[in-house]
Amino acid sequence: MYDLLAGLSVIEASSFVASPTAGLYCAQMGAEVIRVDQIGGGPDFRRWPVTEANDSLYWENLNRAKKSVALDLGRPEGRELLQALVRATGQFVTNFPVGGFLSHDALAEGRPDLITVRVMGWADGSPALDYTVNNSVGYPMLTGSGPEPVNHVLPAWDLLTGAYAAFALLAAIQRRGTTGEGGEVRIPLSDVAIGTVANLGGVAEVLYAGANRPRLGNAVYGLFGRDFVTRDGQRTMIVVVTPRQWANLIAALGLGAAVVAVETARGVSFATDDGLRFTHRDALYPLFEAAIAVRDHADLAAAFDAGGIVHSPYRTMHDAVQDPALVADNPIFGQTHNPSGFAYPAAGAFATLPQLDRRPPAPAPRNGAHSEEILSDRLSLSGTELARLIDAGIVGVAKTGDRSK
Amino acid sequence: MYDLLAGLSVIEASSFVASPTAGLYCAQMGAEVIRVDQIGGGPDFRRWPVTEANDSLYWENLNRAKKSVALDLGRPEGRELLQALVRATGQFVTNFPVGGFLSHDALAEGRPDLITVRVMGWADGSPALDYTVNNSVGYPMLTGSGPEPVNHVLPAWDLLTGAYAAFALLAAIQRRGTTGEGGEVRIPLSDVAIGTVANLGGVAEVLYAGANRPRLGNAVYGLFGRDFVTRDGQRTMIVVVTPRQWANLIAALGLGAAVVAVETARGVSFATDDGLRFTHRDALYPLFEAAIAVRDHADLAAAFDAGGIVHSPYRTMHDAVQDPALVADNPIFGQTHNPSGFAYPAAGAFATLPQLDRRPPAPAPRNGAHSEEILSDRLSLSGTELARLIDAGIVGVAKTGDRSK
Repeated sequence: MYDLLAGLSVIEASSFVASPTAGLYCAQMGAEVIRVDQIGGGPDFRRWPVTEANDSLYWENLNRAKKSVALDLGRPEGRELLQALVRATGQFVTNFPVGGFLSHDALAEGRPDLITVRVMGWADGSPALDYTVNNSVGYPMLTGSGPEPVNHVLPAWDLLTGAYAAFALLAAIQRRGTTGEGGEVRIPLSDVAIGTVANLGGVAEVLYAGANRPRLGNAVYGLFGRDFVTRDGQRTMIVVVTPRQWANLIAALGLGAAVVAVETARGVSFATDDGLRFTHRDALYPLFEAAIAVRDHADLAAAFDAGGIVHSPYRTMHDAVQDPALVADNPIFGQTHNPSGFAYPAAGAFATLPQLDRRPPAPAPRNGAHSEEILSDRLSLSGTELARLIDAGIVGVAKTGDRSK
Repeated sequence: MYDLLAGLSVIEASSFVASPTAGLYCAQMGAEVIRVDQIGGGPDFRRWPVTEANDSLYWENLNRAKKSVALDLGRPEGRELLQALVRATGQFVTNFPVGGFLSHDALAEGRPDLITVRVMGWADGSPALDYTVNNSVGYPMLTGSGPEPVNHVLPAWDLLTGAYAAFALLAAIQRRGTTGEGGEVRIPLSDVAIGTVANLGGVAEVLYAGANRPRLGNAVYGLFGRDFVTRDGQRTMIVVVTPRQWANLIAALGLGAAVVAVETARGVSFATDDGLRFTHRDALYPLFEAAIAVRDHADLAAAFDAGGIVHSPYRTMHDAVQDPALVADNPIFGQTHNPSGFAYPAAGAFATLPQLDRRPPAPAPRNGAHSEEILSDRLSLSGTELARLIDAGIVGVAKTGDRSK
């Protein structure tokens, strides 16, 4: 937690990964992010992984450091309260549909400088999710060694869209500071996906080649990079991006003469050309496989580290979480009370600002924990009016039996 | 291209994906992003995919809408010019090492309000790349149907880090506007990766379970989502996230009675519980496989669309790029002149702002195309001095024979 965005308040009406990620990143940088949900939780409130008591370990991590207002969004009075909160705040992040009661035009009535950042599925408004956008742009057909497509497990499009939405929110605020104008920023998952294909050269590549890139298994396209297995059975990823790393890798493996022999036979030099190391991988891979298969991982890792070679062993997520450098001793992690009652290391902002003190991560709120505070402060609702709304089931508050604080 | 960040100027000294992505997103939102490279191009200048003339289709897409200053960064005078440009500008994005001539402390001498956003590999400064961070946090061991780990092809950690860096840059600028203070923002790929594992509930999950999640092939964890194959051989991804989608999917496939039979046999109701649909996938998947295997894709797609069901066919990247909705008719795309001379649709900002006119995408610069303009304007170098620096090989300018403008 840092305070870079102190003074910024954002209303978030969202679910799943992309839109909550935008709010999370802002909250971890010190913005006040008020997530407004259906009383009892939105569609992602029980998303797996869950505890035995059905508390979502997913929800309570994607919604850290936020406040929670719970409303009955199925009734007009609840919807009007959310609209009023958005208007009273001026910044809104959502993945609700373009039309309907959370349309930008409806919300901007009486608040012309409102900024709405809206995560969408397809750009035309039809529904899509990370896993349906991903296969529609072609990545599963390039993943693995074939012939079956392989889906990613990491919801990369959701995460990238969320980060981009946080960036776009601040960009729109910057413009408003200059022009006084608000507006809506629409970010479809589908445009993030196909736009990224383009940014990485993929659109140009397939049109230039008139064909798809071949499937490469665990090899990296266009340079020397692949997984290899050591004598003691450790699979390790090695990637070379500089001439110095290439020279040091060859030296560490004692492959100087063997690589020169390939260069002579093929009439090329691998010293400075990533592409040639890839083109001639049929000759190079067997040399490296053999040289690595007769060395133990610890021995190789020390030699690679000394040579500035980029490498890392494959491990499971459970093993990764036990790595002190990644989690226990990593200053981005800290302990919080969690709504689930389960204690574990929680992550804060990815960024580290050496000049500033990092505050520990904050917990996710219980559903409705801040309903009274926010509706009272922001909409000036009286205690009597709040009591009526709570009694009528329009406003929800966290129950006293709920865990966490 | 939008002008949300008009008036912001950023110096970028970077390579590969993450740091250039941060600059790209800023440039596409109207910032002036000046990429400073070694004369003749940095280590990513020939990164694949390339044309037959060895022009990088990757580089010319990740560096659109930027300006290019070329310097000999191997010589003190070239390094001092880059330092002076950073100081004269006040905002700097880089993936150069923490120490050395581009350390924040060195750059901030005489420019205390400087903001440096630095993308790193490992948090301790040792080198890492997307593909070595990925296997170190466990995703390849969860991807595919096993037993071998499967690397992702999309450099998801690079992209997420780049987007987060763009966000963090604007957040730091927001703070400087309030406090007057600059500072360094360090964003290690490794912290983005393990922090994301945490944000998605993964750290809590493996510690709660004391074990790794099973490998699920193309199924989505914790809900009903998987690939199925139609009668005409089209593999299609289907994901259900709402009770309405579930009811409509069952109706579209005529599976009402069969699903009720499973519910009765297992003593559960799938109507509103994602988790139960996942737990009992052994009983559900065969029903859906059989029902989908006797229908053609076009027929099913129409029924799914009518029911608001989230689905999409698998296709190759080459096929995706031919989809008019994704590329040819998509307003985020446009044509530019490219340094490679090859013409193809280029992407602009992922976001769409309905109230504003979108300007077409801009091309990447030739190496050194803006050296004279920037060094003259920003550092007030005279024509005589510039000529001396060019003659001495300290400053590079785009050659007249270079393609594009």
